[in-house]
Amino acid sequence: MAASAMTGAESVLRTLSAGGVQACFANPGTSEMHLVAALDRVPEVRPVLALFEGVASGSADGYGRMAGIPAATLLHLGPGLGNAFANLHNAYKARTPIVNVVGDHAVLHAPLNAPLASDIASIARPVSDWYASTRDARSAATDAAEAVAAARSRGGQIATLVVPADAGWEASDGPACALPVVPPAPAPDGAVEAAARALGSGRPAALLLGGAATRGPALRAAARIAAATGARLIHDTFPSRLERGAGIPRAEPLPYLTEMATEALAGLDHLIVCGTQAPVAFFAYPGRPSRLPDPDTAVDVLAGPREDAAAALEALADALGASAEAPVADAARPELPAGALDAAAIGAAVAALLPEGAIVVDESVTGSAAIVQATAGAAPHDWLALTGGAIGQGLPVATGAAVACPGRPVLSLEGDGSAMYTIQSLWTQARESLDVTTVILANRSYAILDFELSRVGAEARGPAAAELFGIGRPDLDFVALARSMGVPGRRAEDAETFTAVLREALAEPGPRLIEARI
Amino acid sequence: MAASAMTGAESVLRTLSAGGVQACFANPGTSEMHLVAALDRVPEVRPVLALFEGVASGSADGYGRMAGIPAATLLHLGPGLGNAFANLHNAYKARTPIVNVVGDHAVLHAPLNAPLASDIASIARPVSDWYASTRDARSAATDAAEAVAAARSRGGQIATLVVPADAGWEASDGPACALPVVPPAPAPDGAVEAAARALGSGRPAALLLGGAATRGPALRAAARIAAATGARLIHDTFPSRLERGAGIPRAEPLPYLTEMATEALAGLDHLIVCGTQAPVAFFAYPGRPSRLPDPDTAVDVLAGPREDAAAALEALADALGASAEAPVADAARPELPAGALDAAAIGAAVAALLPEGAIVVDESVTGSAAIVQATAGAAPHDWLALTGGAIGQGLPVATGAAVACPGRPVLSLEGDGSAMYTIQSLWTQARESLDVTTVILANRSYAILDFELSRVGAEARGPAAAELFGIGRPDLDFVALARSMGVPGRRAEDAETFTAVLREALAEPGPRLIEARI
Repeated sequence: MAASAMTGAESVLRTLSAGGVQACFANPGTSEMHLVAALDRVPEVRPVLALFEGVASGSADGYGRMAGIPAATLLHLGPGLGNAFANLHNAYKARTPIVNVVGDHAVLHAPLNAPLASDIASIARPVSDWYASTRDARSAATDAAEAVAAARSRGGQIATLVVPADAGWEASDGPACALPVVPPAPAPDGAVEAAARALGSGRPAALLLGGAATRGPALRAAARIAAATGARLIHDTFPSRLERGAGIPRAEPLPYLTEMATEALAGLDHLIVCGTQAPVAFFAYPGRPSRLPDPDTAVDVLAGPREDAAAALEALADALGASAEAPVADAARPELPAGALDAAAIGAAVAALLPEGAIVVDESVTGSAAIVQATAGAAPHDWLALTGGAIGQGLPVATGAAVACPGRPVLSLEGDGSAMYTIQSLWTQARESLDVTTVILANRSYAILDFELSRVGAEARGPAAAELFGIGRPDLDFVALARSMGVPGRRAEDAETFTAVLREALAEPGPRLIEARI
Repeated sequence: MAASAMTGAESVLRTLSAGGVQACFANPGTSEMHLVAALDRVPEVRPVLALFEGVASGSADGYGRMAGIPAATLLHLGPGLGNAFANLHNAYKARTPIVNVVGDHAVLHAPLNAPLASDIASIARPVSDWYASTRDARSAATDAAEAVAAARSRGGQIATLVVPADAGWEASDGPACALPVVPPAPAPDGAVEAAARALGSGRPAALLLGGAATRGPALRAAARIAAATGARLIHDTFPSRLERGAGIPRAEPLPYLTEMATEALAGLDHLIVCGTQAPVAFFAYPGRPSRLPDPDTAVDVLAGPREDAAAALEALADALGASAEAPVADAARPELPAGALDAAAIGAAVAALLPEGAIVVDESVTGSAAIVQATAGAAPHDWLALTGGAIGQGLPVATGAAVACPGRPVLSLEGDGSAMYTIQSLWTQARESLDVTTVILANRSYAILDFELSRVGAEARGPAAAELFGIGRPDLDFVALARSMGVPGRRAEDAETFTAVLREALAEPGPRLIEARI
C-alpha cells in the first residue's frame, strides 16, 4: 500500500468510533497487531486491557448494560473468542450491545492449518446476532459499519466481526459512514388492547417485566398500570439492569427456585409479559413442570424481548386511564447488623450504607435472595444480575460498568466459587483505578450444587460429590489474591467488622475487596 | 425408574471406566448432578476439581499426552464448554485423547430458552473429532462406549458427549461394552520406498518429526535413519510430547520465527514429514511466504498425523539397512549461572538441576528458545509444548501431567502473561498435592506482541499499544497469588537466588512456585 493510505484496521476502528464505540476491552495477539496500532491513531476509542478474554467480554457486557451503547472487544482468533464465550453468552441473554472484533489469519494463510487456525464462525454463532468475516481491507469498513449498526439495533445485539490479518494491514478506502439502526419492533397488533381488557377485568393479574421494562419510563408506566388496576409487578429473576430502591417503582423478583416461582405466580388469571419471555424454570427437575405459571393462567405477551416494551407500557397505561404518578418504594434503611456474618447481615449492611446512584452487580448466588430482600428500600441504585447463568460474570460486569459510569460507585457482590472464573478482573480494576468495591461471600463451597444435588433427586452426598462441591481445601485467601493484583483487601468474620470495612471501602475511590467469611 | 435401576449417568461413568478412563477433570453444575452422584458409585474414576473449565480441559490434555489414555472432563452446558474451549483447541492440535462429558438441559426443557440454553454442538464442533448428544438414558451407555473408543482411535481424538439431565437421572440398561479402537492408518502405499529413494540419493535431506514420531521407538528409528543417511532430524516447533536429553536421540527444534525456520530448512533437496504436516508459518507476515521449506525442496509425507509414523519409520530404517543402534545426545550439564537473571540463566539452572524423568511443560514464550537450547543435554525428560497457540495451557497441562505420572516431577515454565489465563490451576495443584514446580518468567509484558508489532509491518509503538503490551502496571505479585491458592512461592531476582530456590523446589514434594524476575 502507499505509505499514506489508511490501513483496513484503522478504517475499522474509525468506523466503529463513528458508530458510537468509545471503549475497547482487549486481549489481543499477533493477528490483531494492526488493530492495536490503529488504536494509537484513533484516540476516541479507549483501550482497556484484560488479562483474560472472559474479563474483556464480561466488561463489554457491563459497559453496554450501563452505557446503552456498544463497547468493542478485541480478541485473538478462535481460542480468544472461546475464552470470551461464557460472558458473551450472558451478554447475549441480557441483549447487551457489543461489537466483537476477532482477528484471524491472513486469508491465504487460513487454509494451511497453522496452530491457531480454527472455525471461528462455529464458536461465534451461538452468541452472535450478527456475524461476518471481512473479505479484504477495502470491505472492512463497510462490514464494521454494519456490525456497529447491528449491535445498536433491536434494543441491543451482539455483532461479531472477524478481521483477517491482511484485511487489517492492507490499504483501505477509509472509514464508512454510520448505517441506520433498527429500533425495537412495535408491540404486536392488538396486544395493548388485549392487555387492557385483561387488566380491566378485575381478575388477579400481574405484569412480568424484563429487558427495557425494568427501568426508566417503562418501569414507571408499569407502576402506573399496577396502581390503576391492582395488578402485581414482578420482574425477571435475573434482570439485565433493574432500577430499584427508594423513590423508584418497586417490583417483586420472580424467585429462582422453581417451587417458589410457581407459588409466586399461583392464582393469576392473567400474566402480562413485557420486555421478556414467558417465565420458565432455570433447570428442569424430575417430575416437575418447566413452565412456571399455573396451567390456567393466561400468559399474554404485551411486548417480547425484541419489541418496544416502553412504548407498549405507556400506551397501556394511557389506555387504562392510569394516573400520571407512579407509586414508588419508600426509603427503608435497616439497622446496622451485629453478630454473626451471613447473607442477611451483608444485605442489611449494604442496605444501610449503599450510596445513592450505586451500581450493584449481583453474583452472590445462594446469598442473593437475602440481599435482594434487604435492599429494596436502599438508596436508589441499578441492579445487574447474572442473565445467562454462566458464573464468572460478576467481576467483569462490575469492571465494565465502572468504565461506563466513572461518577458512580460500583458494588460487586460475588460468591467465592463464582469469583474464581474471572478473578483477573481485579487487575484491570486496579490498572484503571475503577471505583469498585468487591464483596466476596466466602462460604468455601459451591453451595448451590450441594443444595441442587438433592433437588434433582440424586442420592445422598458421598465423598466424591463432597470433593466437587467444597472449595475450602485449600482455603482461598482472597485478601492475598486481591493484593497480588494491586487491589487492597480486608477480611471480615463478623457483622460489625464487615460494616466497618464496607463503609471504608465505599468511601474510598478506587477498587477495594472485602472477603466476607460466612 | 425402579429404586434399584442404574441411572443413565452411572451407566455413562461405568462405560467410560470400562473403556479405560481413570480420571475426570470436573467443573460441574446443576445439570451434571447425577453424573456427580455417579462418581460416588464408580470409584475407579478419580474426580479432580478445577475452579475454571480451562483448567479442566488443559489438565485432561496434559494427562492424555502423558498417560496415552483419555481422561474425561465434566463440563456445565455450553458456557462450561466455552470456558474449556481454548485448551481443547490446544489438545485438538496435539491430538490428545479426551472424552468431554457435557451436561445439558433435560430434553423437554431444552427448547424453552432457559438462561443456560445454547447451541452446544456449534461450540463443540471446532474441537471435536467425534460428537453426540445422547437421546435418553437407555442410549447413554452406548454413546459413551462410542465416545471413549473414538477418543482412543487414530492415535488420539477428542470426543464430546452431551448428556441431557434427564438422560442422566432416568433408568438405564447398565453399562455398555468397550468398542474396538481404530488404530492409526498405515503409511500411504509407496511412501516408505519413496523416502528410502530420497534419503539414499545422498542429497541434503531432513526428517521432520511430530506427533508420535517425537518419542519412543519412532524417535529411535528416526535417529537410526539419520545416522545411516546423514539426514538431519528436525522436530515440530511445538511438539505434543518430545523425549529429549542425555541418552535420547536428539532432534533440532524447528524455530518459531518464520525467517529462522526458513533458514533452518534452506538447502534441502528432500524434507520427509513423519507424524505431522508439512511445516507452515505460525502467522502470516506481509510479503513473506507462509510455507517454510524452499520452493524447490521436495516435501514428502512418510506418515501424516493420523498415520502410523512409528511403523513407517521402523520400516524405513530397515529398508535403508540402518544400524540397530540409535545415536543419542550426550549429557551436558552447564555450569550453574551467576549474576543477572534472564532466560539463558534460567535455562542453565534448569539444565543443571533437572531431575531424571522430569516432565517439562513449556509455555515460556519469548523465553523458550534459550531454555530449549540450554537443556538439550540435561537429564532425560519429556517436553510438552503449546501445540495450538492458545496461551493459558501451561499450568493446566502441568497439572494433568502430574496427575497422570505421580512418580515424576513436573517443571512448568510459564510466561507471566500466559500464566494469568488459567492461574486457578495452582489451587488444583495444591488440593491434589501435585509435584509441580512452576517457574514464572516475569518480564511484566506480553513481550511477544511488542516484538511482533514491528514484524507485521505496523508502525512504531504508541501509548495505546504500550498500554496493551505492558502488564507491569500494577505489578503482579505471583508469590502472593500462589500463596492465596495454597502453593508456597519464592521470588528470585538474580541467577544465584533462582538456582537456590529451584533446587529447593525440585527437592520438595508438592507444588511450589518461583517468580523469576527477568
